[in-house]
Amino acid sequence: MRILALFLSLAVSVAAVAVPDFSGEDGYKLWQRYDVFNAALPAGSLNVVGDSDTTHIIRDEFRRAFGNRVSEKQGTLIVQQLNNELAARFKLGDNVSAQLSDEGFIIKSLGDDMLISAKTDIGLLYGSYHLLRMVFTQQSLDTVNVLQNPKIKRRVLNHWDDLDRHTERGYAGESIFDWHRLPVDKDQRYYDYARANASIGINGMVPLNVNANALILTPMYLQKVKALADIVRPYGIKMYLSIKFSSPQQLDGLPTSDPLDPAVQQWWQAKAAEIYQLIPDFGGFLVKANSEGQPGPGDYDRTHADGANMLAKALKPYKGVVFWRAFVYANDAEKERSLQAFDEFVPLDGEFMDNVIVQVKNGPIDFQPREPFSPLFGATPNTPLAMELQITQEYLGFSTHLAYLGTLFEEAMDADTHAKGPGSTVAKVVDGSLFNHQLTGIAGVANTGMQRNWTGHIFAQSNWYAFGRLAWDHTLSAEHIANEWIKQTLTVEPDAVAQIEAMMMPSREYIVEYMTPLGLHHLMDSGHHYGPGPWVDNLGRADWNPVYYHRADKQGIGIDRTAAGTNAVSQYAPYWQERFAQPQSTPKELLLWFHHLPWDYTMPNGETLWNELVRYYYRGVEGVTDMQSRWQQVKPYIDANQFRQVDMALQIQMQEAKWWRDASVLYFQTFSERPIPDGLPKPEGSLDYYQSLTFPYAPGQG
Amino acid sequence: MRILALFLSLAVSVAAVAVPDFSGEDGYKLWQRYDVFNAALPAGSLNVVGDSDTTHIIRDEFRRAFGNRVSEKQGTLIVQQLNNELAARFKLGDNVSAQLSDEGFIIKSLGDDMLISAKTDIGLLYGSYHLLRMVFTQQSLDTVNVLQNPKIKRRVLNHWDDLDRHTERGYAGESIFDWHRLPVDKDQRYYDYARANASIGINGMVPLNVNANALILTPMYLQKVKALADIVRPYGIKMYLSIKFSSPQQLDGLPTSDPLDPAVQQWWQAKAAEIYQLIPDFGGFLVKANSEGQPGPGDYDRTHADGANMLAKALKPYKGVVFWRAFVYANDAEKERSLQAFDEFVPLDGEFMDNVIVQVKNGPIDFQPREPFSPLFGATPNTPLAMELQITQEYLGFSTHLAYLGTLFEEAMDADTHAKGPGSTVAKVVDGSLFNHQLTGIAGVANTGMQRNWTGHIFAQSNWYAFGRLAWDHTLSAEHIANEWIKQTLTVEPDAVAQIEAMMMPSREYIVEYMTPLGLHHLMDSGHHYGPGPWVDNLGRADWNPVYYHRADKQGIGIDRTAAGTNAVSQYAPYWQERFAQPQSTPKELLLWFHHLPWDYTMPNGETLWNELVRYYYRGVEGVTDMQSRWQQVKPYIDANQFRQVDMALQIQMQEAKWWRDASVLYFQTFSERPIPDGLPKPEGSLDYYQSLTFPYAPGQG
Repeated sequence: MRILALFLSLAVSVAAVAVPDFSGEDGYKLWQRYDVFNAALPAGSLNVVGDSDTTHIIRDEFRRAFGNRVSEKQGTLIVQQLNNELAARFKLGDNVSAQLSDEGFIIKSLGDDMLISAKTDIGLLYGSYHLLRMVFTQQSLDTVNVLQNPKIKRRVLNHWDDLDRHTERGYAGESIFDWHRLPVDKDQRYYDYARANASIGINGMVPLNVNANALILTPMYLQKVKALADIVRPYGIKMYLSIKFSSPQQLDGLPTSDPLDPAVQQWWQAKAAEIYQLIPDFGGFLVKANSEGQPGPGDYDRTHADGANMLAKALKPYKGVVFWRAFVYANDAEKERSLQAFDEFVPLDGEFMDNVIVQVKNGPIDFQPREPFSPLFGATPNTPLAMELQITQEYLGFSTHLAYLGTLFEEAMDADTHAKGPGSTVAKVVDGSLFNHQLTGIAGVANTGMQRNWTGHIFAQSNWYAFGRLAWDHTLSAEHIANEWIKQTLTVEPDAVAQIEAMMMPSREYIVEYMTPLGLHHLMDSGHHYGPGPWVDNLGRADWNPVYYHRADKQGIGIDRTAAGTNAVSQYAPYWQERFAQPQSTPKELLLWFHHLPWDYTMPNGETLWNELVRYYYRGVEGVTDMQSRWQQVKPYIDANQFRQVDMALQIQMQEAKWWRDASVLYFQTFSERPIPDGLPKPEGSLDYYQSLTFPYAPGQG
Repeated sequence: MRILALFLSLAVSVAAVAVPDFSGEDGYKLWQRYDVFNAALPAGSLNVVGDSDTTHIIRDEFRRAFGNRVSEKQGTLIVQQLNNELAARFKLGDNVSAQLSDEGFIIKSLGDDMLISAKTDIGLLYGSYHLLRMVFTQQSLDTVNVLQNPKIKRRVLNHWDDLDRHTERGYAGESIFDWHRLPVDKDQRYYDYARANASIGINGMVPLNVNANALILTPMYLQKVKALADIVRPYGIKMYLSIKFSSPQQLDGLPTSDPLDPAVQQWWQAKAAEIYQLIPDFGGFLVKANSEGQPGPGDYDRTHADGANMLAKALKPYKGVVFWRAFVYANDAEKERSLQAFDEFVPLDGEFMDNVIVQVKNGPIDFQPREPFSPLFGATPNTPLAMELQITQEYLGFSTHLAYLGTLFEEAMDADTHAKGPGSTVAKVVDGSLFNHQLTGIAGVANTGMQRNWTGHIFAQSNWYAFGRLAWDHTLSAEHIANEWIKQTLTVEPDAVAQIEAMMMPSREYIVEYMTPLGLHHLMDSGHHYGPGPWVDNLGRADWNPVYYHRADKQGIGIDRTAAGTNAVSQYAPYWQERFAQPQSTPKELLLWFHHLPWDYTMPNGETLWNELVRYYYRGVEGVTDMQSRWQQVKPYIDANQFRQVDMALQIQMQEAKWWRDASVLYFQTFSERPIPDGLPKPEGSLDYYQSLTFPYAPGQG
């Protein structure tokens, strides 16, 4: 990453505007603005061959992008499904067809002509979006020769939206899905949502919360689901539904939902038939079972495999799949929480039907600003695993903190499990290559809502974008993706692009620093997870309380997950077991995740743990100052509306970063009984003040 | 009203569009599009004199409207506060200043020049918006000589929005007020909201629900309120707050909220001082007390006057006022509900402080599609009354039914109470002229939300518009206002304007017909009020149940409110007592409001009541067919996005109108035991089917 020297100007305060009129870019167009600069079709004419809805979409997208502008070249841009004549003319080689999956595409220039080809119209659509991305990120088009297939097959957005349009962990307004007005009202937003997803290769959607509502399977609601499915189909997007395991009882009064009960099995088979009658390409079910109060097979002493296989059997005739979530932890937890998913699922390895994929969060707890990779990755050679990433910023400042999560996703993908020796990355588990699985998937918990800019923060759009791009190709770097997104969304002015990259790339780390540095985790306030609450110790379950995770006392801080403690390290491959066993060989950023250490523990740089911890908290706030300064620098190159939105959000982020820092340092100081290192400003409020704050109406509550 | 002959074409079905791209008019600009046609400044140049935020707003608004387009006239449009020189130059007459209120304005042309003048910048703003309206409704500007003052002084939008952004009876998405992000995030929507209101003369806002939350009076939230107040101030809009009567207990642990307790009085005085410190022009409080579970002075055996006066005293030093709602009905109602507000408030006439205004809903029940006027109007000569109208369509089809409420508001305004003889209209009670009150007010329950088009239905914008226009000048006709709105919002093509007027003007009557014809009322389903529920009889209170209101039995239908029944007629002036006493002299549209009549009662046209009732239900549905047909006719003259939105809503309205008709007729038929008259199609479903429908997630629940 290229980091520019920080311009040392004072942040320019934005003059009060009597009459805001930001009729420019309000964020609705996402990365599909096509007007950051005016581009011309990279050919003299366009020939899209075909008459499907998808080919109409392709023509429409080129019209949006280029209007009537064509290049001075005389050639033709041909968009057409592969055939022998085309293959010969463009010298694609004999086995080009064998190299392409159903979603793959090629783009090849030959003289003045250019070809986008694929085996399906959806492949043509992906190729078209790829070419548009090349144009609008100003890549050279002199000699193009691209062949791409997605590395993961099912790339799915999980919406945690409810039927009443509340969105759990949603910070961008209410759900974009207006169930009340469906199926008649086909809102423009549905089409633009599908376009945005198709442009980054997302090919599945789960419109409703994993804390599911049985009503979605009633005939009235299935008509609404069908209407949505019909809209998104030409964009290559399949509809999935999260289901309530107790639906047979809730909807039709069956006496049980036991997965081994024949009547229950028949109920699901009939329901699957009903769904496929309406939606022939229905993707399948997503299931949260026996977790956080949800019903599941455990209610009948059946295993997760029993539950998943019952559903898989119902979907099998139609090629549907089951995403079965591994995010489970027992209600009467005696076992430390991070251990539980592994202990429940590893023994079931090999027992799932071949159309079941187990969906695992990237880390062993719950989408913290930083976690180690989940030990499940690499531990189930006979069970395909989908990775679940959280795009919405439940634990990363909601939608007012600028947190580019491309770096987090990249870190999660690139983590090396060492399950089959070095290079056994999580990405290779997920893309099926490590254990040779054909069924592959990845899920992102969406950050969309009715806010005009979709995600509540212009920069939060980059996380939706990064999820899609990495799901398609996990070898892309977070920096490359940030660069792509900036150019399509904000500006192509090179200095400004560099400045904005220098905001985005460390932005997630700033949040780690001012919230949960050095491996601390789960320190947020109760319920809504808004703001700091490291002192919280009164929740119904031990493992819902921050004190459970930081375990600060007079002696030190951190949770001991070595063999002397909860022994969570034992769930990792020997390579990591060995390293995590000692603080000295544990990566610094995970230090307090695995170890309880004395306040005077000597850090590698010679500082005490206390001093280093405090310095991190302050460093995070300085990072926000840096972002504010850079944002002022790029003002001349940014649309006024986009600029103002981000500027206001950065002001909120600054307030909240200081709040996190001051509340946390003051609280931990009651244990460490050590001073804040010299030279650092004192906290602005008192610990009593921070502890007195309550936010009953913080958004996104579960 | 000019009604065009209905074109007898079949409704043209809209072709499926593979790629909707309605980037045209999405409804966000409301009636301030300024691009229905391109107009020029009606002068050669513009000279707005002044440097206040408000004069900046005026310049900005002319820029939005005209860009750089000026007329061929050489003159200048001067926008300037009144002074002697201007008065002499434009021959305004000696007493022009005395004729103008602080909000009034004059517009006068002289030769090629034109003057907009007023005593305040807000008056200039209103004058500017009036001239813009004249331009964009294509009125002649050859010789302009206008002097206007608002007829009612406090013209206030009441938002029933909660701190979590849920909106009670909101059908346009969540609240536009993002309390979580305030005070830092000053969303563009707040400015555009203020502009829209200023353009129609609305000068007050209550951002939160009358079912109030005490937290709004905490320091943290008052900072957010201040931020909003600062935004809307230059647009002439004052901030009011709905308050929880028990706030002293809830916020500061006082042992009581008894209005006669000195500590409670001091608490409110201190709170008022705190508010005015932040918001020097704060408007005052809106109070729902001792109604539907809300706390109030009755909890301490004090009167409404005791409660209101305590608050009024706290606000008095700052010229604040109390809007005290008369929408009360006892929890242990033995008395018929329509009687109660009158019986509680008439005895208090004269007991309220002079900065208290009692806010009365237009009818005695609750915003039904049609009600008689509330008998309180005219019955309290010593107490100023504000009228509360409901803009949001709680009982008129939510935001998917096209219901132009200008006609309802006009009917409510023009109702003649006969309190001081003929001509004692409700409007004259409200504007203060009947009983010579200086404190005057009118409230509209807002229909705004985060839907891009603000109100959920393009035509629902017309109700916001009509409320503002009638609040300013209740002598305007509903038809005139509809015409203004159409031209500014949809089209100026004369035939299309006429067609759309012919949709709007009878549209509310269609809804009366397919929901609650002939004076029936309160027949909707429970809680959410979505769809028909005339059979509902199981709610906690008798007077929440539809059966309480229609009282259908084998003998007949309707509620007897004559002396032989609940004697609600006795609350009206003798003129109306006499007429309401007999069905023959009761207006047909209120027949079953006041009378229980046999199924075979002979209507004026010779039909039986049953047959007539059924015909009305069918007529309402035919009205929707008529609207659909007209909408197809005007398609060439309407923006594609606007057209599509309304087209989809009309489809939903058609489904729901039939549902209302069929469910209601089938249900009443179980009592009447008479057939549906010949020639009318049979209901599509069975009564059992309609009774089985449930909608737990219908929007806007209380």
